[in-house]
Amino acid sequence: MTCITLITDFGSRDEYVGVMKGVILNVNPDATVIDITHQIPPQNIREAAHVLKAAYMYFPTGTIHVAVVDPGVGTTRAILAAAAGPFVFLAPDNGVRSLVMADAPFGPLVRVENPRFFLKTVSPTFHGRDIFAPVAAHLSRGEAVTALGPLVDPSTIRRLEYPVPFMDGPGCLVGQVVGVDHFGNLITNLPEKKLLGKSPEMKIQVGTYSLRGVKTTYGDGVMHEPLAIIGSRGYLEITVRGGNAAAVMSLGPGAVVSVEWGF
Amino acid sequence: MTCITLITDFGSRDEYVGVMKGVILNVNPDATVIDITHQIPPQNIREAAHVLKAAYMYFPTGTIHVAVVDPGVGTTRAILAAAAGPFVFLAPDNGVRSLVMADAPFGPLVRVENPRFFLKTVSPTFHGRDIFAPVAAHLSRGEAVTALGPLVDPSTIRRLEYPVPFMDGPGCLVGQVVGVDHFGNLITNLPEKKLLGKSPEMKIQVGTYSLRGVKTTYGDGVMHEPLAIIGSRGYLEITVRGGNAAAVMSLGPGAVVSVEWGF
Amino acid sequence: MTCITLITDFGSRDEYVGVMKGVILNVNPDATVIDITHQIPPQNIREAAHVLKAAYMYFPTGTIHVAVVDPGVGTTRAILAAAAGPFVFLAPDNGVRSLVMADAPFGPLVRVENPRFFLKTVSPTFHGRDIFAPVAAHLSRGEAVTALGPLVDPSTIRRLEYPVPFMDGPGCLVGQVVGVDHFGNLITNLPEKKLLGKSPEMKIQVGTYSLRGVKTTYGDGVMHEPLAIIGSRGYLEITVRGGNAAAVMSLGPGAVVSVEWGF
Repeated sequence: MTCITLITDFGSRDEYVGVMKGVILNVNPDATVIDITHQIPPQNIREAAHVLKAAYMYFPTGTIHVAVVDPGVGTTRAILAAAAGPFVFLAPDNGVRSLVMADAPFGPLVRVENPRFFLKTVSPTFHGRDIFAPVAAHLSRGEAVTALGPLVDPSTIRRLEYPVPFMDGPGCLVGQVVGVDHFGNLITNLPEKKLLGKSPEMKIQVGTYSLRGVKTTYGDGVMHEPLAIIGSRGYLEITVRGGNAAAVMSLGPGAVVSVEWGF
Repeated sequence: MTCITLITDFGSRDEYVGVMKGVILNVNPDATVIDITHQIPPQNIREAAHVLKAAYMYFPTGTIHVAVVDPGVGTTRAILAAAAGPFVFLAPDNGVRSLVMADAPFGPLVRVENPRFFLKTVSPTFHGRDIFAPVAAHLSRGEAVTALGPLVDPSTIRRLEYPVPFMDGPGCLVGQVVGVDHFGNLITNLPEKKLLGKSPEMKIQVGTYSLRGVKTTYGDGVMHEPLAIIGSRGYLEITVRGGNAAAVMSLGPGAVVSVEWGF
Repeated sequence: MTCITLITDFGSRDEYVGVMKGVILNVNPDATVIDITHQIPPQNIREAAHVLKAAYMYFPTGTIHVAVVDPGVGTTRAILAAAAGPFVFLAPDNGVRSLVMADAPFGPLVRVENPRFFLKTVSPTFHGRDIFAPVAAHLSRGEAVTALGPLVDPSTIRRLEYPVPFMDGPGCLVGQVVGVDHFGNLITNLPEKKLLGKSPEMKIQVGTYSLRGVKTTYGDGVMHEPLAIIGSRGYLEITVRGGNAAAVMSLGPGAVVSVEWGF
């Protein structure tokens, strides 16, 4: 079995995603194509990077992960492919893989240039169909990454500008909301491992809300009130039991979140 | 072939559904996973119950039906599994299967507790990924329901509070709108079989609208006017030809619908 | 491998699409079902025709393309099936295939009437489930189109009313916006081949906007300003770099687009 995952900002109303699958099946009828999401906000590389990082490790060995959020389509921006552990990643050189690269050492990294693996006609506006899909399908049939184009020095590729949490004094960690999910949960950039072993009575400040401690489940909260938990991505999340935190709290990406335990 | 269906309230913008499929394919690369819907309104158990009841019988023998609408995730609420006829159902103990249970006698019913079938790390916030997906995949490989945990007395499980139609005099049946579909059709809890053989001139009252008789197709109506038909789920539906009934009529779940034929 | 594609206006919140897949798998467990889109606006035959035309040729030989945008469901409108080149098309007789028919000569065209290929009970409101799905599945198993029903004279079937571009003087072509995609790009009915070899300084007028020349990629434009390109469907598109053209320009289907090169 060879699995190909797709992350795009193509939405669901046009033929764009379906056509990519048609192209893949033409090259590899045995490929299993899994949609991770096509609802990345248009050209939002950071959100695509989050989703890719949260998802990739749950797929079978050999999975080809394809991320097509690509404001530079048709320009001179490179398309990159790299093996990393048991996976192969295929994405534009725009930082979408940055968060994954922090996790896993990459194998050979190449610039995808070999037209033998493209559709015969490559439009300047839809590389998802004309390049990413057929290249992914060839990879899923066992084609080597190094057949796709010349090696690239990993130090030259683009990285995502990403907010890093910082210590504001010895017992206070400051981060921010970096995403909002379908349920309205506010996902922060504060990883669980930085909060482990801290006082269960830590103070969490987000906007005008002050919360006490990190709870375990949504059910530990009071209905319609905010609470802090560790979400399924392994980061601190602010949620509202039985409600939509982003809407109830009027907060979103960029909101500062501070966690204080040194008092 | 083993088919697994998914009904969730996870939406389509995050990685949640894709990750469940990755976990399933890791356990059973031959599983065919079918999305029934992921657009259940957050935590709306009743709508999930409707969809499950309307869909389950159209799938192949051996299909595993998984419903993850689960406000109690991570709390002490049970996860239940049961064979029923040619299918297996896997869902939280919150009533989502109630409507199906009225249809089909259930086989052994168990509380899913055996961590051998879970991911190694179970987060308290995403049992879809950590429990439901791997358990469904093991079931699709032929694992017995009874291997998942201890037997449960069916009389102890949660049932959905559900509005039952009632007779208001000898020739008048009263129900309500229980759902609105993508087209804006108002789906009631009045089953076709209770209306069969009644006067074709029956009066149907919904909100301030009075309709005459149940039509056969959308085309039997006047453009932009309401009409009553039997919908594909086998219940009375109020629709507007060429329009959206919920919007045109300003009605939704809870609206009373009475059908009178004894005049 | 046998591939079945689906284009519908069923949306994603109800069980409608999932149930069609269940029915297909019951008949042909080896079918690969690909969603092209289910977000066609309700009963918008023209948009379904666009999507079908843009997508069909990218799928493997033998693919069955199914389009269920069907305001006449349950009435006397016919359901048509036809082989065309390496594909089979299955759709209501409402013009949804008109644009494809301009591309490809059709083989035998039949009216689908043989109930042997339907579900046992056919509801008057959901032929997607009761007729289209099982018929497509039987076709994907190799059933002949001519087994489905009597031959139909192609000159009698419905065609889409469709705006045709016209010359307004020797150097001026006039068309219109016929669609808006997920990104807000305004897709016109002016095909690339009518613009090839014309002055690169051609004037493009759309609403109150005057643009100069057709650019190659989104990156050739100024951020937040409109530009004209040839889109992935092979038609002139008006786009806004880094933005949503339909929203920024307040334009949509029906807006006149003129291209002038004879000056």
